[in-house]
Amino acid sequence: MDFFEYRNGELFCEDVAVADIAAKAGTPVYIYSAATLLHHYRAIEQAFAELKPLICYSIKSLANLSVLRLLAQAGSGFDVVSGGEIARALAAGGDPSKIVYAGVGKTDREIREAIAAGIGTFNVESEAEFENLARLAAEAKRTVHAALRVNPDVDPKTHRYTTTGKKETKFGVDIERAERFFDRYGRDEFARLDAIHLHIGSPIYSADPYVEAIRKTLDLIARLRDKGFSVTALDIGGGFGADYEEHRSPAAVQYAQQIVPLLRGSGLAIILEPGRQISCNSGLLVTQVQYVKQGGERNFVIVDAAMTDLIRPALYEAQHFIYPVRLGEGVPVPQRKMDFAPPAGTKVDVVGGVCESSDFLAKDRVLPPAGRGDLLAVFSAGAYGFVMASQYNSRPRPPEVLVEGDAWRIVRRRETYEDLMAGE
Amino acid sequence: MDFFEYRNGELFCEDVAVADIAAKAGTPVYIYSAATLLHHYRAIEQAFAELKPLICYSIKSLANLSVLRLLAQAGSGFDVVSGGEIARALAAGGDPSKIVYAGVGKTDREIREAIAAGIGTFNVESEAEFENLARLAAEAKRTVHAALRVNPDVDPKTHRYTTTGKKETKFGVDIERAERFFDRYGRDEFARLDAIHLHIGSPIYSADPYVEAIRKTLDLIARLRDKGFSVTALDIGGGFGADYEEHRSPAAVQYAQQIVPLLRGSGLAIILEPGRQISCNSGLLVTQVQYVKQGGERNFVIVDAAMTDLIRPALYEAQHFIYPVRLGEGVPVPQRKMDFAPPAGTKVDVVGGVCESSDFLAKDRVLPPAGRGDLLAVFSAGAYGFVMASQYNSRPRPPEVLVEGDAWRIVRRRETYEDLMAGE
Repeated sequence: MDFFEYRNGELFCEDVAVADIAAKAGTPVYIYSAATLLHHYRAIEQAFAELKPLICYSIKSLANLSVLRLLAQAGSGFDVVSGGEIARALAAGGDPSKIVYAGVGKTDREIREAIAAGIGTFNVESEAEFENLARLAAEAKRTVHAALRVNPDVDPKTHRYTTTGKKETKFGVDIERAERFFDRYGRDEFARLDAIHLHIGSPIYSADPYVEAIRKTLDLIARLRDKGFSVTALDIGGGFGADYEEHRSPAAVQYAQQIVPLLRGSGLAIILEPGRQISCNSGLLVTQVQYVKQGGERNFVIVDAAMTDLIRPALYEAQHFIYPVRLGEGVPVPQRKMDFAPPAGTKVDVVGGVCESSDFLAKDRVLPPAGRGDLLAVFSAGAYGFVMASQYNSRPRPPEVLVEGDAWRIVRRRETYEDLMAGE
Repeated sequence: MDFFEYRNGELFCEDVAVADIAAKAGTPVYIYSAATLLHHYRAIEQAFAELKPLICYSIKSLANLSVLRLLAQAGSGFDVVSGGEIARALAAGGDPSKIVYAGVGKTDREIREAIAAGIGTFNVESEAEFENLARLAAEAKRTVHAALRVNPDVDPKTHRYTTTGKKETKFGVDIERAERFFDRYGRDEFARLDAIHLHIGSPIYSADPYVEAIRKTLDLIARLRDKGFSVTALDIGGGFGADYEEHRSPAAVQYAQQIVPLLRGSGLAIILEPGRQISCNSGLLVTQVQYVKQGGERNFVIVDAAMTDLIRPALYEAQHFIYPVRLGEGVPVPQRKMDFAPPAGTKVDVVGGVCESSDFLAKDRVLPPAGRGDLLAVFSAGAYGFVMASQYNSRPRPPEVLVEGDAWRIVRRRETYEDLMAGE
């Protein structure tokens, strides 16, 4: 669900014509819809309202300060994974006590900064990390709260690169090892181990893996409580899906229908870490066709965005729906499905200008006829889009634009050649 | 071949201890050896000397200005693929007439900048691009030289993402189409189509695909000359291999032994575009162990470098040799082979702190025992290392250091949290 729609053959973001933004901000450009961001945030808030959860938006999916400010104002906490993300959360006015800090490789510097900032919870991924946290907390004479990340060993049925809760990943500790972990560290003076953290992967298009993971974890918590440990919070992580295709993802309420009953009356403070479900459908990458080319056996639409701007197709074999910003004569408003084939469409690869074959945005996609100068919208590009951009091939990164109703503004300017060489 | 070696159990870059650089510049850090860069440049120059080629170092593999300056001073031209790379080449003192400009998605702005700078040759990838180049050259009333990139349809037997000269890629035009291309555009007034460009992929560990491609291309050139077209130059592209493992790649002279005889007496100016063979073994990524962790079924060495610093393992399934910077008691100087198993070694995954399972530097690698604080060197990281770095997970990009003999200096500073948010 999002606020991108065609009106009289022209794509709008809320009440702004996408082509107008492209004309003024240039291409490629990321465009975010504030209403869509807030819609998804509030949908999660309402769906889980009975549990009064702390919603910690996952910064890593879309980290622009203006987006974070919008969500902080709506009441969101933040899920962060680095010192840089803590700096972003604080710069956006985030409440440090509503920040949860995950990540398997926290450095001493990052941990010290996080302790000094008073962040809410450290999600701890290993014995060695806990010992380090406890040492640094003692050194700072500050009490911190820690959640043990457990691997419930469920298969979220997503890409192998975004599967994070199975036994063989680098994340968390196995559920069987969690009791020993508490035995060993559960009574530390400065690092209070009083929560459990789960994160099983992303995107997950069914509530079932959550149900399985939460059941296993509640059993663990019961055993820990029997042993006298005080477990006060459960962070069920993120991973809710998004509509890369229409109606693909369950809505927040559908996840909640299965999850809330499990946690009702548990006496646990509940933390959610949604990222993609909030940010994914809130963003477009808009790009302009540079050349149309008939290869030996394939047709190529060469655009001015590239893998440097959106690496998900190359890295995860991800599929993004792509369609013209302005519909030509006889071109229908699309269903956003990868196999949607408009009449008179041709099968093309949409590729960028980077000098390698991994540089594609879509392969074997039937698109309406596209010519030089046409604008194409790459949908569902809000999550893991700009945040993963690079300057490979010495390409300046694109600007980011935030739309609110009939107003829009550049919330990150386009990089220049000088930016590429800064610091050298 | 490179100037990284162990002396009394300690890794040196030329005459500087790698650990000293890490202590002062911090980790992760990229370290480049000037002597290695120049050694490989000169080896290519000597191997192909008979042809008096123009060597255009491929900026995209390692683009730091200080590296470019070093090569420009050694006489190198540059292979560029974007306006940003043209800006880099010029900033490094590169001679515009020795620049070749490739890329399938050149924008009008980039082409205009390139015309204004007087760059040597435009490598043209499609009919539409040629028409656009001719239009912009006419508009500027400037004569430019263009090389037609042809796909000789040879299989370089490399990763599908770095295979670029087969029929189904987005690059160039098929060799059968090249004659028609010349018929149509070969007498343009402003864009002089007077060269052929080849680039079949990278890395290519044998001269055979070059031989096959060059033979096909020489046949084409003969046919074009018969038709009265003046073809004065042949750019055989890049793609020479590098020693990711010891002695893996043919030396420049071995490629030359097969290639030079084909081109002797051809009357063609020869252009070479080596990148990886010059830069790859010239660079190390040095990282510090943060945590050692026993997972459910695997052992993890968690380091402070990540896929954000070096994405090749995640994106191309690339293998980089990894070994401690300081050899502990009984740890031998390694053979740089992926299956080298030091005594008392354990099988580990070397992973970074980014929150996804694609974030690994090596999997199932037998390493000497590594503990918190140890430094590891990731070898052969000069090419497609820093240039592909991102700030994903809001991680500042690492610094780059250039070593010359017993001196070293930071040639790009480490990014700060402020840098991450610049422009927002």
